Amino acid sequence: MTHVDLQSLVDDIAGEMAREVVRGKVADYIPSLASVSSDKFGITIIDHAGDCYSAGDAHSPFSVQSISKVFSLTMALGSVGDALWTRVGREPSGSPFNSIVQLESEHGIPRNPFINSGAIVVADVLLASYKPSEILGEFIRFMQMVAGDDTIHIDKAVAQSEQATGFRNVALGNYMRAFDNIVHPVEQTLGTYFHFCALSMSCQQLAKAGRYLMCGGRRHPGTADTIISQQRARRILALMMMCGHYDGSGEFAYRVGLPGKSGVGGGILAVAPGIASIAVWSPGLNSHGNSQLGMIALERLVQRTGWSVFRSNR
Amino acid sequence: MTHVDLQSLVDDIAGEMAREVVRGKVADYIPSLASVSSDKFGITIIDHAGDCYSAGDAHSPFSVQSISKVFSLTMALGSVGDALWTRVGREPSGSPFNSIVQLESEHGIPRNPFINSGAIVVADVLLASYKPSEILGEFIRFMQMVAGDDTIHIDKAVAQSEQATGFRNVALGNYMRAFDNIVHPVEQTLGTYFHFCALSMSCQQLAKAGRYLMCGGRRHPGTADTIISQQRARRILALMMMCGHYDGSGEFAYRVGLPGKSGVGGGILAVAPGIASIAVWSPGLNSHGNSQLGMIALERLVQRTGWSVFRSNR
Amino acid sequence: MTHVDLQSLVDDIAGEMAREVVRGKVADYIPSLASVSSDKFGITIIDHAGDCYSAGDAHSPFSVQSISKVFSLTMALGSVGDALWTRVGREPSGSPFNSIVQLESEHGIPRNPFINSGAIVVADVLLASYKPSEILGEFIRFMQMVAGDDTIHIDKAVAQSEQATGFRNVALGNYMRAFDNIVHPVEQTLGTYFHFCALSMSCQQLAKAGRYLMCGGRRHPGTADTIISQQRARRILALMMMCGHYDGSGEFAYRVGLPGKSGVGGGILAVAPGIASIAVWSPGLNSHGNSQLGMIALERLVQRTGWSVFRSNR
Amino acid sequence: MTHVDLQSLVDDIAGEMAREVVRGKVADYIPSLASVSSDKFGITIIDHAGDCYSAGDAHSPFSVQSISKVFSLTMALGSVGDALWTRVGREPSGSPFNSIVQLESEHGIPRNPFINSGAIVVADVLLASYKPSEILGEFIRFMQMVAGDDTIHIDKAVAQSEQATGFRNVALGNYMRAFDNIVHPVEQTLGTYFHFCALSMSCQQLAKAGRYLMCGGRRHPGTADTIISQQRARRILALMMMCGHYDGSGEFAYRVGLPGKSGVGGGILAVAPGIASIAVWSPGLNSHGNSQLGMIALERLVQRTGWSVFRSNR
Repeated sequence: MTHVDLQSLVDDIAGEMAREVVRGKVADYIPSLASVSSDKFGITIIDHAGDCYSAGDAHSPFSVQSISKVFSLTMALGSVGDALWTRVGREPSGSPFNSIVQLESEHGIPRNPFINSGAIVVADVLLASYKPSEILGEFIRFMQMVAGDDTIHIDKAVAQSEQATGFRNVALGNYMRAFDNIVHPVEQTLGTYFHFCALSMSCQQLAKAGRYLMCGGRRHPGTADTIISQQRARRILALMMMCGHYDGSGEFAYRVGLPGKSGVGGGILAVAPGIASIAVWSPGLNSHGNSQLGMIALERLVQRTGWSVFRSNR
Repeated sequence: MTHVDLQSLVDDIAGEMAREVVRGKVADYIPSLASVSSDKFGITIIDHAGDCYSAGDAHSPFSVQSISKVFSLTMALGSVGDALWTRVGREPSGSPFNSIVQLESEHGIPRNPFINSGAIVVADVLLASYKPSEILGEFIRFMQMVAGDDTIHIDKAVAQSEQATGFRNVALGNYMRAFDNIVHPVEQTLGTYFHFCALSMSCQQLAKAGRYLMCGGRRHPGTADTIISQQRARRILALMMMCGHYDGSGEFAYRVGLPGKSGVGGGILAVAPGIASIAVWSPGLNSHGNSQLGMIALERLVQRTGWSVFRSNR
Repeated sequence: MTHVDLQSLVDDIAGEMAREVVRGKVADYIPSLASVSSDKFGITIIDHAGDCYSAGDAHSPFSVQSISKVFSLTMALGSVGDALWTRVGREPSGSPFNSIVQLESEHGIPRNPFINSGAIVVADVLLASYKPSEILGEFIRFMQMVAGDDTIHIDKAVAQSEQATGFRNVALGNYMRAFDNIVHPVEQTLGTYFHFCALSMSCQQLAKAGRYLMCGGRRHPGTADTIISQQRARRILALMMMCGHYDGSGEFAYRVGLPGKSGVGGGILAVAPGIASIAVWSPGLNSHGNSQLGMIALERLVQRTGWSVFRSNR
Repeated sequence: MTHVDLQSLVDDIAGEMAREVVRGKVADYIPSLASVSSDKFGITIIDHAGDCYSAGDAHSPFSVQSISKVFSLTMALGSVGDALWTRVGREPSGSPFNSIVQLESEHGIPRNPFINSGAIVVADVLLASYKPSEILGEFIRFMQMVAGDDTIHIDKAVAQSEQATGFRNVALGNYMRAFDNIVHPVEQTLGTYFHFCALSMSCQQLAKAGRYLMCGGRRHPGTADTIISQQRARRILALMMMCGHYDGSGEFAYRVGLPGKSGVGGGILAVAPGIASIAVWSPGLNSHGNSQLGMIALERLVQRTGWSVFRSNR
């Protein structure tokens, strides 16, 4: 598509989303999420040339929450490689994001790194590679580097709210600790996890951060600088496709057909490999905890661009 | 890749597979499957030009078993369209192929059409569109038409063995009948299902049958004749990606990165959208009930061709 | 208590139950159960002297349904002794009467003989001891003998309705057949099971039939004739206490404090060891599938007689 | 039985237990439990006259662990009465003592007060009635009062070990906190719970403490002084019968036929209502986490005394 086309496309979609009446339910378990208006909608597309197309609230920062799991996974694979897979699986869970049931029968090994329990293990793995005092700095530097934006930061107030109310996550952490699949003090691992989730980014920053997944591991279009190998980029995308939307992953694959990862803050990062890195945001959630409008917007985008990974016309 | 390249590729892979020592465990629950030698390996690739490359036992017929679920689903969507989704879900199950647990908490609605319970519902849906006396004929004609091969047939001995030993499937059928999600006599629905599974095809026939999924719904390269719409082709591929290998689907996506569907007879149909329809066969199974060598062969094929749907170089 | 007291007691309770407004929901899955009026209430107590006290609809026959599981268990223990326990457990299930979930993780071994799956195994065990053509005759003769009443019979219409609609039970039977824990043809085992459940008895007949459990295995007060050993009588009572009311067993023990077994026809057989055999009947069921008024009646009876096995004044 | 008989009985049983070869596995999750020799065996019977018969290591203190749940339940019912049952159920769980699975589907309400999650809720309930600084003192005073023994105390080292390693319990507590079924700070509630479990008592002290359950709520034989009402005593015994041995409760009822409560320290408190309060102790555990020899000893005791609540000769 041409520049004009893509700009029109995001403008059209933003306009359509503004008129949607059913906007989902904003997460209300912590004040900083509950206070966000469900009127918000933002979208950014960065194409394989590196050009950026935004519309709506694409420059408003929001809490990326579980989308951070893509980046912490990337860092953990960089640190320990495939050894990670002894501590976390690669299968869809078929269960809600915070389910504890499978952990009992599967001896404390989470199904995949994108459900809460799995991402808590990823944080624990990173604590073996970085000092507690440096890990958040390392994470922020990684995010700033992949996004090419030094202003990206963690919202400490969000992290503190999460810590004060995240009893289910504390339960998950201690439960896995009982199976020796958390090896650092649980509160330290969870503190790290909660801070990762409290990352604050705009659609534009998020789409930029996702460029290395569009580019087969290269940092961004037009550079030879690599973040990860091509194979690892493909594999992270496979995990996003299979497990990126909890027990709504099948629905997302069916309707959108792109690897993606959602967060309870209402953001979704989707990647059309070789073609585009896409971020959408609208805080109202559907019944699976994924952005109601974000998913509709991506569905329309793919209908109009044909960017599904399952398309035949290539 | 050139003609020479693809033929060399399948020859190489067949040669490598012949030398593999760990070959998995041949299904032994019915005599006609148990008697197949684990020495067998076949592979066929049909590319977007319609050219066909085979190696090994690519012309030996085998029992396609659950791969038939792709084709019965295609027929059912043709008959009732999206109304199908009121009776079967579209999410990975996270459970083995014959699990009954989720049916209890989910009121008799199977997670997806590729686990046994889901495919039994699909058979039941088709029984509302076709007379019992005609449904197998219709199915065979559909298979012969998509494969362009009038010799494809159902192995009645296999169907009868399945019926004589398929107690778990009888349980699944009756359990869903109790929830009114099977509406025809259970033995009739199961009889239909068992016959679908007893389809006998070679790699070459199977790869041909998969062409419409490679071609966005057109019957085969070089024709305008369509089997299904482009959107439906994409969606079936999405379902294959998410649910095609039971609780090994995540592993298949991670290692192979193509939509695929396996059968307990040792076959796998995989599709590189717009590029190739691929069938592999080796009867030894891994712990998830998927072909041990079939999966390795596909992994190597994708490594050497770069055909993963998650690749960036397009 | 004196003769006068016990007759007054049952009269009082029947009077109170007649005035109860909340009467539960009559089972409606087969016509012969659905057509019974929820106005009905009957009670019979037979004391350790063998005297019989009845009130209300104590002479109306009703479908004993799962209460028959006590008697088929007694026969099976007589046939195979403790070998039975290799095929069925002795623990409360914590699940509804017709749940299939535990069978999957516990490899086709039902938790106890009083949930449906367990009683189906018991029927299958009896089919190894009696010819199919004789088993129902043997069962009826056993019931007539323990009750001392030649008019007790099986309601064939009920059995046929059960067979026509009992899809969940067919599922349970086939599921266990898949684990080789049903060894006869499933339809034969289920036919036997459905006929056991279709036993038609009045409160008076049922209380008489329960005398051997009150009397430590002797057929009735004032005889040395034994049905089973004292130890076996105690153990069957223990099973009734632990598992007699499905996932309402704890509630029954807490409120009533007697071993008992309920049926979906609204009957409950309760035993005060050494003191009384008690049958109550009212067809309206509570949320656990146990007789709403039957349970209230037993609670009051125990409050007024002090017959709980947990009482200290003995 | 006469004095001579009961003393001979406990002596015989202690002698037999000394000769048993299979003695179970001593709990090893904390050092103070792991260091206890599996050679130990003690037994005390207190009869309805208040006479006390002991043999073996009946005067050695051991960690009562989960047996304390009987006493904390008694206190909680005294504090809030039946309101307790809005926060914890009364059904057997059919699951291991520390299972978290049911809490997810049952929204944080534990099945009964004798599994860990249920006893944690009981501790939380008591924290609403007593100040944190006084609750352990109150509990100890209650224990000293019911046992008539001022030397009973909590082993602080055990409590601290439990706190340092009890990750599963921390998980349970936080999980229920997420459902608002723990209302005090989780560490406070768990600290209370761990200290209750760390109660150190001998068989003789424990049998004395159980007298109020034998005596229908009166503190001990020969007093009119009541701890709880007769009805409450019966109901606590019903709960012990149904839920006192986790997923081995059915086995205990079947083999022993008395209400009882076991602890991972190897103790069991069993009550023959109106007849005897019995404590046994041997630290080796069977596969359900109940004392291997303790259970055998109780089985023999009941065989020889006929004290099963299911006996007919009364």
